Amino acid sequence: MTRIFRANGCLKILKILDFFDNSIPYYIYMEKFQVTVLGCGSALPTMRHNGSAHIVNIREKYFLVDCAEGTQLALRRNHVHLNRMQTVFITHMHGDHCFGLMGLISTQNLLGRTAPLHIYGPADLEPVFQPQIDYFCPNLDFEVVFHTVDTKAFAPIYEDHSLTVFSIPLQHRIRCCGYLFREKPLLPHIRREAIERYDIPVWQINNIKAGQDFTLPDGSIIPNEALVTPAEAPRSFAYCSDTIYKPDIADYLEGVDLLYHEATYADDNLQRAEKYHHTTARQAAQIALAAHAKRLLIGHFSQRYEDENLLLREAQEVFPNTLLADEGLTLDV
Amino acid sequence: MTRIFRANGCLKILKILDFFDNSIPYYIYMEKFQVTVLGCGSALPTMRHNGSAHIVNIREKYFLVDCAEGTQLALRRNHVHLNRMQTVFITHMHGDHCFGLMGLISTQNLLGRTAPLHIYGPADLEPVFQPQIDYFCPNLDFEVVFHTVDTKAFAPIYEDHSLTVFSIPLQHRIRCCGYLFREKPLLPHIRREAIERYDIPVWQINNIKAGQDFTLPDGSIIPNEALVTPAEAPRSFAYCSDTIYKPDIADYLEGVDLLYHEATYADDNLQRAEKYHHTTARQAAQIALAAHAKRLLIGHFSQRYEDENLLLREAQEVFPNTLLADEGLTLDV
Repeated sequence: MTRIFRANGCLKILKILDFFDNSIPYYIYMEKFQVTVLGCGSALPTMRHNGSAHIVNIREKYFLVDCAEGTQLALRRNHVHLNRMQTVFITHMHGDHCFGLMGLISTQNLLGRTAPLHIYGPADLEPVFQPQIDYFCPNLDFEVVFHTVDTKAFAPIYEDHSLTVFSIPLQHRIRCCGYLFREKPLLPHIRREAIERYDIPVWQINNIKAGQDFTLPDGSIIPNEALVTPAEAPRSFAYCSDTIYKPDIADYLEGVDLLYHEATYADDNLQRAEKYHHTTARQAAQIALAAHAKRLLIGHFSQRYEDENLLLREAQEVFPNTLLADEGLTLDV
Repeated sequence: MTRIFRANGCLKILKILDFFDNSIPYYIYMEKFQVTVLGCGSALPTMRHNGSAHIVNIREKYFLVDCAEGTQLALRRNHVHLNRMQTVFITHMHGDHCFGLMGLISTQNLLGRTAPLHIYGPADLEPVFQPQIDYFCPNLDFEVVFHTVDTKAFAPIYEDHSLTVFSIPLQHRIRCCGYLFREKPLLPHIRREAIERYDIPVWQINNIKAGQDFTLPDGSIIPNEALVTPAEAPRSFAYCSDTIYKPDIADYLEGVDLLYHEATYADDNLQRAEKYHHTTARQAAQIALAAHAKRLLIGHFSQRYEDENLLLREAQEVFPNTLLADEGLTLDV
């Protein structure tokens, strides 16, 4: 049996499984991996949608992807303390993806931030924003570290003990890349009943998770595969905005759990999508299908669509497991 | 008798008066002069208040005073088309007064603006924002004209046929000035019954309003004062934010109809107000009292006051005709 529910804090109890013949329920704790939409409009902000900004929360580490004007308020609205933000990823240097950066940095300073803020993005990011930081925040109490991303390469650009972030080469009117957040392979789970049966001491558990066998006091060896169950597959989230329809990115996205792809237009504006280097909802779904994505989240809606269900329907014709982005929507990856 | 009500369009029918002995009602049409608060928070934007931004609407000419992050959305929320904005006045170069400028300019361009946008503000305005405009809006279809204001002088900086705007020297941590919007003297009203009595042709009416007498066919002269009633006094609105308590500005504000003055703190933070060059609500009221202002509107509230009625009460102890600013509030001047 499988049940899904939320737990407090950063852990999610994902599954209850039966093991062996004694049917002892076994709890697998899944670390938090959530995506929250702060803004999914396109260039013209409207009363319905803010410009692009998304939070990726992995084990209570907060990453911001894009930072349109008003993002600091959207963070407050979603009860995320501004100084919890560890790292910001900017896809490209259009205002609806970065005009909120200065306000965010300035307010973080007023709120007493001391931890460095790392900002990843195209080469122009630092020369454009550093002078503004120097002017508006001459007494900044924390370091802003810019990391230039090669927007033409699929390459790891960020890494910590549980996560790797890759750049995804996109094609827009200016240099632009997406970002793929991929968990590192997880350790297997030790079987609780094996601990009891073989009286395994706590200090041995990490060794066994790392692959070691266990030796009993009488010298006999219990092989590792009898002591553990396999880890869950590492989860992944990809963010692709803004871009013309670019089928080759599906290779980089193979099997992604959640794909956010821009879907600025419906079929009725296919030519406009090509002209302005954007994607239609149907094309976004084709990417998801080719990539064998598990779920597709479409966003970056043109203000011309008062009812975005048109976009949803066109995408679902190709890829049924499609969702519409909306401000405040949080998805577990 | 006096009645006040709103009319459609730009005119406001302000008063119904009885003239002469025949009690013919006489309508005086007052041109629109309104102030709308878009944001009245201080440096830290909150869920209650946006950063500083105000619209001054004089006869359907729209002026923006300050332009914090999110101003373009606040304009939409208040049903003001972004391209109706003729002129922007920036008081000083702190983010909570100007971080919305780039978003506003960028969106105006997307909306097809062709008319020049005039921006008045301190000397740093152009060197800080022109490079951003060049980078983010390389194909701008309209001209942005920066006008440097001497923030240490009380001087006329803008003029059109009905209005003069003066800079008001303020004292903040950086160069800062307020702005005084003052109508030009209005023409007197021609008496309707005089038109009928002396059969005055339409083409003569503007001459009479300008001060001429009227000559009857028999050569007799009707003096101007028998033909007109005096114009209303020119109206004025002053915007003073941000500043330390600066009593000498009352001289520039003498008799102002509506004074917006920052009131960041209550009495409990008097020392903080001095340290950060801000004003308490009570001090703002003292300015209004000394200036013989008709009404005081306080704003730029510190986020620490959850109930701003504390600020209101302290101001009203000195100057009873005080109002609290709030997003969306519109006042007739």
